[in-house]
Amino acid sequence: MEITTAQAAAELLAQDNITILCHRKPDGDTLGSGFALHHALTQLGKRSAVRCADTYPPNMKQYMLPDTFTASSEDYVVAVDVADIKLLGALEAEYTGRVNLNIDHHPSNKFFAEKTVLCPQAAATAELITDLLMEMNAELTLPIATCLYVGLCTDTGCFRYSNTTADTLRKAALMLEKGVDNGEINHALFESKSAGRVAIECITQQSMEYFYDGHLAIMTIPKALQEGNNVDDSELDGLSALPRQIEGVWIGVTVRENEGECRVSVRTTKEADSAAISAIFGGGGHLRAGGCTISGSVEQAKKRLVEEIGKYLCRVE
Amino acid sequence: MEITTAQAAAELLAQDNITILCHRKPDGDTLGSGFALHHALTQLGKRSAVRCADTYPPNMKQYMLPDTFTASSEDYVVAVDVADIKLLGALEAEYTGRVNLNIDHHPSNKFFAEKTVLCPQAAATAELITDLLMEMNAELTLPIATCLYVGLCTDTGCFRYSNTTADTLRKAALMLEKGVDNGEINHALFESKSAGRVAIECITQQSMEYFYDGHLAIMTIPKALQEGNNVDDSELDGLSALPRQIEGVWIGVTVRENEGECRVSVRTTKEADSAAISAIFGGGGHLRAGGCTISGSVEQAKKRLVEEIGKYLCRVE
Repeated sequence: MEITTAQAAAELLAQDNITILCHRKPDGDTLGSGFALHHALTQLGKRSAVRCADTYPPNMKQYMLPDTFTASSEDYVVAVDVADIKLLGALEAEYTGRVNLNIDHHPSNKFFAEKTVLCPQAAATAELITDLLMEMNAELTLPIATCLYVGLCTDTGCFRYSNTTADTLRKAALMLEKGVDNGEINHALFESKSAGRVAIECITQQSMEYFYDGHLAIMTIPKALQEGNNVDDSELDGLSALPRQIEGVWIGVTVRENEGECRVSVRTTKEADSAAISAIFGGGGHLRAGGCTISGSVEQAKKRLVEEIGKYLCRVE
Repeated sequence: MEITTAQAAAELLAQDNITILCHRKPDGDTLGSGFALHHALTQLGKRSAVRCADTYPPNMKQYMLPDTFTASSEDYVVAVDVADIKLLGALEAEYTGRVNLNIDHHPSNKFFAEKTVLCPQAAATAELITDLLMEMNAELTLPIATCLYVGLCTDTGCFRYSNTTADTLRKAALMLEKGVDNGEINHALFESKSAGRVAIECITQQSMEYFYDGHLAIMTIPKALQEGNNVDDSELDGLSALPRQIEGVWIGVTVRENEGECRVSVRTTKEADSAAISAIFGGGGHLRAGGCTISGSVEQAKKRLVEEIGKYLCRVE
């Protein structure tokens, strides 16, 4: 059942013990949304805990505090920014059929929760949490505003992507008024790279291959490269932005080798639909940024990508 | 004499023929401010023209239209985003002693105009022009909003730099409400690189040298590299962001060889003052981004930079 943020606020205000679930491989939006909600519920006198199957990216760990978990099996369960129950990762089995509320902005949301707040126009789930907290009359303290800002800027590439709306910017403005140190956060999240990441960036950029008059660019990150440079997983994810940055590229694909399969990131300009391309391979995502997993070697994955994206381009042109 | 935006609005409303001056090597803020003002003055029934000594960066040319100049020597003259009369470049001699009004946000402003609106807290001159246009009761049409958005996002690195305030974001939100295609503009200004730029990026990153426990990073761009890759001047400027992005770097310096002298860009984190460092070499700028010119070869410039920045670090630590 779909409900509004006002109805979700009423639901939460009626509960005392609440577990908040973030998606696996957590990013700033699921964590920022989760911890902002956690702080607000605590402020309103409730017992709350945030749970996530995987560790947090090191560059945003400091904003996601405290991370002590005291969840109980009796709790009311809220998922934030989770499009599919599978995205709970190692927590999937434990929470299947037990999620009471899901607050999300992914168009691909599978409605696995009892009740769902879904707003695909929102650039980030943090936008919905901002509305929710207003409805709950929670005070936007600095830790809450910081978490929400991290969510807003993560999912918009620091307000650069086309999903950024006037609403996103006004909400971010509100967070700055609460004292959020945007310079520090933006530097930590978007401007800081390890020397290892810079080295990998140079090598992977040299692997760039172009197809279909330069409209498709594919870059590969072999396993050996990931291991040799002491680079964090989330830093490697950041590389996915590179192929689409080349002039004339409509579809920028990054193929990352990973134990007999490849993790594929698809970024597009307005000329192509990233979610549709990812869906060909059983993946999903947003209009401009999606992903999928393809079994086999890098060469095999690349061959399939070139073929299927070629067919896709024929269909849309 | 310093005046307010309200007083500047009254001045402009009393004029009929107005020439608007942008600084040499124009960026999105000087051009966006200039053309937004030009459109507004035209809308209010005045004759106006934008002048600039140098050509426009190709990625923002399309937003700065029409660029037909009909300035006359009798005109009222307004400079936008020009900190020093020298920054008029080839137009300096023609306009020395003739600038009636200057609207700027650089703390280093030299007050060369008869009257000056100066607001160093503003992230971009485009913020001041937004206020000015409100005071003039000009309608924020799509071309005006587009120019102002280009100004706002250029000087904040698309809202990433620490100069971005709640006010900046609210003004940007207003522009999006007027229909500005932020996705397109951000892609053109911040996400689009030529294949040549990518190649140069890889080579220059390999020239990175570290000093003082990795707090100072210096990257060099030799002349030969600039010529061999068919890369635009403004694209080369974008490289300056790279050294400061390395973890642990407080002062990121880019040295660009140019006919017997070096153009030096200085970017800092909160640990150092870029304007103060640039001033040692006769340059200037903002707290986090400044620049200067040092005569001699790249090696000579680098030697002086390392020495002087070493002394600077001793003073501030």
